[in-house]
Amino acid sequence: MLMRLGYGRLACACNNRPYIVPIYFAYDADRLHCFSTLGRKIEWMRENPLVCVEADEVRGHDDWASVVVLGQYVEIPNTRDCAKSREHVRSLLQKRSLWWQSGYTASQIRRKAKLPVPVFYCIQIEEMSGLRGSPDTCEKRSPQARTLRKSR
Amino acid sequence: MLMRLGYGRLACACNNRPYIVPIYFAYDADRLHCFSTLGRKIEWMRENPLVCVEADEVRGHDDWASVVVLGQYVEIPNTRDCAKSREHVRSLLQKRSLWWQSGYTASQIRRKAKLPVPVFYCIQIEEMSGLRGSPDTCEKRSPQARTLRKSR
Repeated sequence: MLMRLGYGRLACACNNRPYIVPIYFAYDADRLHCFSTLGRKIEWMRENPLVCVEADEVRGHDDWASVVVLGQYVEIPNTRDCAKSREHVRSLLQKRSLWWQSGYTASQIRRKAKLPVPVFYCIQIEEMSGLRGSPDTCEKRSPQARTLRKSR
Repeated sequence: MLMRLGYGRLACACNNRPYIVPIYFAYDADRLHCFSTLGRKIEWMRENPLVCVEADEVRGHDDWASVVVLGQYVEIPNTRDCAKSREHVRSLLQKRSLWWQSGYTASQIRRKAKLPVPVFYCIQIEEMSGLRGSPDTCEKRSPQARTLRKSR
């Protein structure tokens, strides 16, 4: 589902104050690859790398699914050494036509005269849980619902 | 938009670890009224009342809107003194046919033998910001986009 959707909400926290933003991502093995421009979200995640990502798909009140990921923010530095990593993330994200949208939108809204600073990062998945409601088993744990503890 | 949607994602945080869950709510003046059953989310918010709620409406990549609310968790105690407040919240939420769903689902999934403990609470809004992208002004700040600082 994460692979198919590629869209969700990211929560980060600073001084125990949580903050949610919509994000686009590319799911690859044990991580979510993301892009943003420098702003509150990135500053907070640099300070505190603990994050949560939620994605859901609601077709109707009796046909829905949601996934919650707990993970760590890992920034890909803008250095020559990391050029290959950045290119890998860029190629994964480019499969999604709107991957740049949330970062670009944020930078436009901040209306900074200077060019936005691009930041590539990934969310290293530590724990993932999912819930699903289907017409036959609405509001019950379904075989697809599971909790995967990858660490902690 | 909050009034119309009545559905979004709530982030709370414990020891600087954020956690997101989908919620139903009723928007009323300066607060969001919500219902849940006792679980991780409620335990975390009792410990740390700082929360964030995000709601969005995506009709297409060039036609979307999102609202982010920063606020404080305020629980309505299960006491006789608060019976009227609880009834008020219940009446607001009952206008939404699925208001009980997220709490009920969570309690089902926990599969506790004992009856779930209902918790009524509200999010006292401190700060609200919104973004909108329209076909003509996609990815630009629109007249509707605004930040309302209610405090802080």
